[in-house]
Amino acid sequence: MTISADVARRATNRGTPGRVGDVRRQNLALIMHRLDAAGQMTRAQLAAETGLTKASVSSLVADLMSAGLLSEVGLNRVGERGRPGLGVALNTEAAALGMEINVDYIAVGVLDFAGELHFHAVREQHNAGRPPEEVLSSLQSLADEALEQAGGSGMKIHAGGLAVPGLVDPANGRVLRAPNIGWRDVNVALWAEALVSGASFGTAIFNEANTSALAELWYGHGRDLDNYLYVSGEVGIGGGVIIDSELFEGPGGNAGEIGHVVVDPDGPDCSCGGVGCLERYAGQEAILAQAGVDGGNTVERMGALRVSLESQDAAALAAVERAGHHLGVATASTLRMLNLDAVVLGGHFAQLERWIVPAFRGSVNRHAPALLAEDRILVSKLGPTAAVMGAAGSRIRSVLQKPYELFS
Amino acid sequence: MTISADVARRATNRGTPGRVGDVRRQNLALIMHRLDAAGQMTRAQLAAETGLTKASVSSLVADLMSAGLLSEVGLNRVGERGRPGLGVALNTEAAALGMEINVDYIAVGVLDFAGELHFHAVREQHNAGRPPEEVLSSLQSLADEALEQAGGSGMKIHAGGLAVPGLVDPANGRVLRAPNIGWRDVNVALWAEALVSGASFGTAIFNEANTSALAELWYGHGRDLDNYLYVSGEVGIGGGVIIDSELFEGPGGNAGEIGHVVVDPDGPDCSCGGVGCLERYAGQEAILAQAGVDGGNTVERMGALRVSLESQDAAALAAVERAGHHLGVATASTLRMLNLDAVVLGGHFAQLERWIVPAFRGSVNRHAPALLAEDRILVSKLGPTAAVMGAAGSRIRSVLQKPYELFS
Repeated sequence: MTISADVARRATNRGTPGRVGDVRRQNLALIMHRLDAAGQMTRAQLAAETGLTKASVSSLVADLMSAGLLSEVGLNRVGERGRPGLGVALNTEAAALGMEINVDYIAVGVLDFAGELHFHAVREQHNAGRPPEEVLSSLQSLADEALEQAGGSGMKIHAGGLAVPGLVDPANGRVLRAPNIGWRDVNVALWAEALVSGASFGTAIFNEANTSALAELWYGHGRDLDNYLYVSGEVGIGGGVIIDSELFEGPGGNAGEIGHVVVDPDGPDCSCGGVGCLERYAGQEAILAQAGVDGGNTVERMGALRVSLESQDAAALAAVERAGHHLGVATASTLRMLNLDAVVLGGHFAQLERWIVPAFRGSVNRHAPALLAEDRILVSKLGPTAAVMGAAGSRIRSVLQKPYELFS
Repeated sequence: MTISADVARRATNRGTPGRVGDVRRQNLALIMHRLDAAGQMTRAQLAAETGLTKASVSSLVADLMSAGLLSEVGLNRVGERGRPGLGVALNTEAAALGMEINVDYIAVGVLDFAGELHFHAVREQHNAGRPPEEVLSSLQSLADEALEQAGGSGMKIHAGGLAVPGLVDPANGRVLRAPNIGWRDVNVALWAEALVSGASFGTAIFNEANTSALAELWYGHGRDLDNYLYVSGEVGIGGGVIIDSELFEGPGGNAGEIGHVVVDPDGPDCSCGGVGCLERYAGQEAILAQAGVDGGNTVERMGALRVSLESQDAAALAAVERAGHHLGVATASTLRMLNLDAVVLGGHFAQLERWIVPAFRGSVNRHAPALLAEDRILVSKLGPTAAVMGAAGSRIRSVLQKPYELFS
């Protein structure tokens, strides 16, 4: 998934004298995963839980601390006997940079290995139809600010992740199609070094809805749910499907495109080339047009829509209700095909929760009775940070899996 | 998946003196699977391919022959040196009974372990609204005929499988909901022994569309495709999703219900409790009503529809075109969510291929452009035998996995 091609080569050498053997590699990853799951542990606890000797654990932890991935933390309660041990935990100074390009904004944030987001910044700007180089250049300046702040706080950025609203080819670092911003076959790999210079794991690219669904898995409702449909509401509508606590990508790699599920076969044309897609009824532009809110950029207009909703404006209420109804139709069809337990609404669907969820719930129950429990319609816990957190979190997981790649 | 609860207990004893050990169990299953894949092999070839010694293979094969699962077959070409070996193959006298209950017919067939169907019989009868006991009783009489014929031919039936058009709970042998025949929580397990008496592996129950999708995987297009949507066209419409050459059941176990994907949110009520489902536009009754074909049972009316189509009857052509259009809408939504490579049309969609596929193809391309290649719209190779073959084939696979359960 990484763009930088030289990672594997660099990583095979562990400096003098030799290479990291396969068994040691597995054990290094094992230590990282145990600490990721448990938060903090003593070396003795790690030895007990992994079945490794205490001497092995100490040596592995030493390497991981040298690489900046672990740090010692304050006293940790152990059993009743013996002196209290010093705990180790994922180093909160180790981090990944998450980035997002969407239709009307760009965003960045630094996610530390313990899952906390720092220096989150959003810049509102029209990206649709602009040359990709211009958009990437402005993203670079926003990323530079975050990286500078992170560096000033002593944080080390090991990888970057970029979320875009479209179909991507992660292996080659390309955006294949992102109709809502007008991109087609854009080589983001060329920008990887510029966006996050010096990151050992390079920069990878993701579909925005998939990465948001994963962020919810790791940092939000996923702690309680092992399967759900995540619906990302922006100008476009994306979807991510989580099954058995993993992203379901489908045989072709692009599953979950609920924005282009058909909700009215005789509906309007869609930017995807289809007809009557959900996006044309429940995307931000569609709702704003229906509600008659104009003037300003999409972010400003969404704010104006909220004001209208608060004041019970009939056109605004009707537009959101209509969107909720159609979102329910597409979700009902999705539940019939995928038989998921829950739905997590993100993006503007989360912002409009009060007004959109009643219509949504009614429509799901009308078209797929009894398939979705009352308490399984949820709103994202991550709000507008989901895509950035997911992009960074995906890269943190790459480091957890192959920490030895930092031992160069 | 088997209904009979005592199989495991019976199977743990290998008669005198001892039990079949775990390693031997694995090796027995390995031999069965190799022969299932290869058709026939010599003992020497089996030894070479499995890595077992020739003595082990001979002993394993002897046990499997004693259990009636393997038989020796004519001379098999081996390499250039040595005398030609006698081949072994799955015994074509070992078989499973497949059964199907649908809205307007019942069907049975005996499938041998080499995948050939014998004594296939279909009895047209109205099952909707009849007491389940009556339907199961008539199925039993049809099954008895097939079993008698099979017995007369020297075949041994090791297991039974029953396909029904509804949601099932295989573990408990229950049909949960089959609205098109009016069943709700019917305990088929009570009938298991009566339907296929003496079968060591008992009788299991399956969803008709899922089992048809699997039949296509094992005996039809699945030899060339590892993922597809199978659409079963009967009075109701079911679906089965194959991903990575396995049935995708979804977290809740009931994925693939394309018959209840919404194709018109303002459409008619459906037997499932939903509104505007595909089934109401493209199920047999829906097409017949739209075409104005009445008189006789559904099977007879479908015959009359074909005659009308052959003679270019405008109402018949329009009804089928309308069904194809809506089938395309539901398929487009499915492809967006699951990103599958191919669609296999079964049941009446296969019978009506000439008339329905053009409208179907046009609709898929309109709503999900470029997602389904021209040559990936296929018609089932199995026709009306799909459900029976899938139900029997699923049980044959149970025997292949645990052949030692027959060593009692």
